[in-house]
Amino acid sequence: MKSIHIGIIGFGTVGAGVAETLLNNGDIIAKRTGYHAVLKRIADLDTVTDRGVKLPEGMLVSDAMQIIDDPEIDVVVELIGGTTIAATFIQKALERGKHVVTANKALLATQGKKLFAIAREHHVDIAFEASVGGGIPCLKALREGLAANRIKCILGILNGTCNYILTRMESERTDFEVILKAAQEAGYAEANPSLDVDGFDTAHKAAILASLAYGHWFTASDVLTQGIRNVTLDDIQFAADMGFRIKLLAVIKELNGRVQLQVRPSLVPVTSLLGNVNGVFNAVWIQGDVVGNTMYYGRGAGRQATASAVVADILDAGFHILDHSPARPLGIDDDDAMETVSPDESYSRHYIRLQIADRPGVLAKVSGVLGDCGISISTATQKEAQAAYTQMILITHQARESAVRKAMEILDTLPEVHEKPVVFCIETLE
Amino acid sequence: MKSIHIGIIGFGTVGAGVAETLLNNGDIIAKRTGYHAVLKRIADLDTVTDRGVKLPEGMLVSDAMQIIDDPEIDVVVELIGGTTIAATFIQKALERGKHVVTANKALLATQGKKLFAIAREHHVDIAFEASVGGGIPCLKALREGLAANRIKCILGILNGTCNYILTRMESERTDFEVILKAAQEAGYAEANPSLDVDGFDTAHKAAILASLAYGHWFTASDVLTQGIRNVTLDDIQFAADMGFRIKLLAVIKELNGRVQLQVRPSLVPVTSLLGNVNGVFNAVWIQGDVVGNTMYYGRGAGRQATASAVVADILDAGFHILDHSPARPLGIDDDDAMETVSPDESYSRHYIRLQIADRPGVLAKVSGVLGDCGISISTATQKEAQAAYTQMILITHQARESAVRKAMEILDTLPEVHEKPVVFCIETLE
Repeated sequence: MKSIHIGIIGFGTVGAGVAETLLNNGDIIAKRTGYHAVLKRIADLDTVTDRGVKLPEGMLVSDAMQIIDDPEIDVVVELIGGTTIAATFIQKALERGKHVVTANKALLATQGKKLFAIAREHHVDIAFEASVGGGIPCLKALREGLAANRIKCILGILNGTCNYILTRMESERTDFEVILKAAQEAGYAEANPSLDVDGFDTAHKAAILASLAYGHWFTASDVLTQGIRNVTLDDIQFAADMGFRIKLLAVIKELNGRVQLQVRPSLVPVTSLLGNVNGVFNAVWIQGDVVGNTMYYGRGAGRQATASAVVADILDAGFHILDHSPARPLGIDDDDAMETVSPDESYSRHYIRLQIADRPGVLAKVSGVLGDCGISISTATQKEAQAAYTQMILITHQARESAVRKAMEILDTLPEVHEKPVVFCIETLE
Repeated sequence: MKSIHIGIIGFGTVGAGVAETLLNNGDIIAKRTGYHAVLKRIADLDTVTDRGVKLPEGMLVSDAMQIIDDPEIDVVVELIGGTTIAATFIQKALERGKHVVTANKALLATQGKKLFAIAREHHVDIAFEASVGGGIPCLKALREGLAANRIKCILGILNGTCNYILTRMESERTDFEVILKAAQEAGYAEANPSLDVDGFDTAHKAAILASLAYGHWFTASDVLTQGIRNVTLDDIQFAADMGFRIKLLAVIKELNGRVQLQVRPSLVPVTSLLGNVNGVFNAVWIQGDVVGNTMYYGRGAGRQATASAVVADILDAGFHILDHSPARPLGIDDDDAMETVSPDESYSRHYIRLQIADRPGVLAKVSGVLGDCGISISTATQKEAQAAYTQMILITHQARESAVRKAMEILDTLPEVHEKPVVFCIETLE
């Protein structure tokens, strides 16, 4: 039986999971692929800490170049993260004719175009299934399983930390800050949570999905990004009362040849599949013109789930190495740019929360403003007043984003409306 | 740009969808793959009926051999169904060195081993994504995306007709026979519905999934199969009262090196993802030892969804044709047999419905029997009596199937228990 040889750079959580999987599941992998996937070397500056994986003597080294410069190694797995030294290692590995597997979404969402050009020049490939949706083989589904489809829409719950926080806020009826602190203590959120809760991690993943779906390079800076800090417990409870859950969604939609590319808290029906993706789990909802609606669900992060995707990429690369066949093309056009579209042009239903004065005639005034902007109200609920102010929750029918924005600007000027109106889009998944 | 040439045998619903997709989405397909997927010929005995697809003059012929014998055609798509003439056409195409794409689950679940041996002998491949889960790229996920995993469990909602009937029975509180008739009139069920409602179609798909998951050939006859005819409206409503939905599941589980392989109506939590797969949609829940729980969802049948999967297979084959690289091995061992295990050895929670005499002491007697068999009751509900009889619903904790079967045999002999006890397993998806 033939073999491919693998080197891992970065022996952290995921690196340990990949090593463990290659060592423990070598038999089933050989049965499925017909070749041996041999872990030859792991490099990490820390060669001392116990990662809970029993490695053969001498496998762990401190110098990544011992992997990159080893002519026997076919596949280099980059798992150190970040966008500086990781980029250097990947570039060197590609230049030496090695296939690269990475889970580094931040790197791909910023320097993907450059790195893939280097890969192409050296007739090797960069595989990156683990960069979006962790263990879920969602990029493979998009690139290969749905290759016959024009992609109409992708909605993704792509950040486990945010989904965990939103799930716990609802189930424990507790404010964001309290749950964030608990999540940090439980290891589900970083000490500096901004990358997650401000939506940047989701934006990296959205850029990768959009690039693959539409065949043009999008970067994280193309993604209009809003995190979950402004989602209040009130919003979660009011949404629940109306049959919705709030999720942080990557929203990627084709609108007349352009792409709407956003990360934003959104309401989804509590009876929908995305509405039932809870805790640290991720899901990607993909609508194709031929296949219709599909969804892919699983763990979006973690030692093992991410390792599952990384090893799948290694095995795909192994076939190309042994067969001397080129990897599947990325299908992304380097030259042709594709415009993103302002969400102003998009239509959706909206959730609007207003803090209003508790006196007669306010609902009439508010609905007058919405009506003047061409926005039709589906349901309106006014909560029992607890002070001089009360909360009014409106669910609209389909309305153009620009009209909603204009209406909110007008409402914000009314003396009866206190605080800035809160607006979230509703994704009905139809 | 290079080209591959495609012939379709069978211009029915799916054949028309495949032709339409190749003709309409050729541009996006070429962009993604880097080659042209050219539809050269379609064969069908009926060359007259309008299928709503505008074909170039002369493309539609009545003789399948005009495809099989055409040296320019690289990929033969078999979409006539059935297990006789379809097998002959596939065999001839393979013998002429053509890749075959098929959606024919019945054929694969009965003659797969033989056909794949022929394919191997002629260095070509049979692709069959559309045979399970329609448009959902679930076989690709299992074979490629989860290739690093030992598969612990697969649960599948794989028959749209059954799921449509069960969904409508619940939403309309209407009996099976009435909904079946409506489904037949709406075109969601066949005039002879047995293949669907008796679980045989699901069993075909379960055999394919199990073969791929465990690397041994299983056939439909290995699958212990029960359909949905015995699911009553009472059961659906009582299950709903307890927070469950009834779904017809393919149940594939590894139990100590053997495989439990069943099709059976089962309860799933109403808040679970499988519990929210409604109407004609399908879903496959796959638990791997590395990745944990994953799920894949979409349309399980229909002209377009199935075409999406068929064309994806054509495109995968195209790469192998143009690169002269072998297709991914099936990973199934022809010689080594794997035993299926009697469900007797499996454990799960159970739903038990008893029709009992409405008099004192019956609950004590019933729970005594269950206790003697080592079965612990989680919840018991006795419905208001409507006659001399009343319904008792029991939800058990984890219990061994053999113990439950034995308990039911004892209960069936009690004078207080009328009619045969109804038992369904509960899949908690944990």
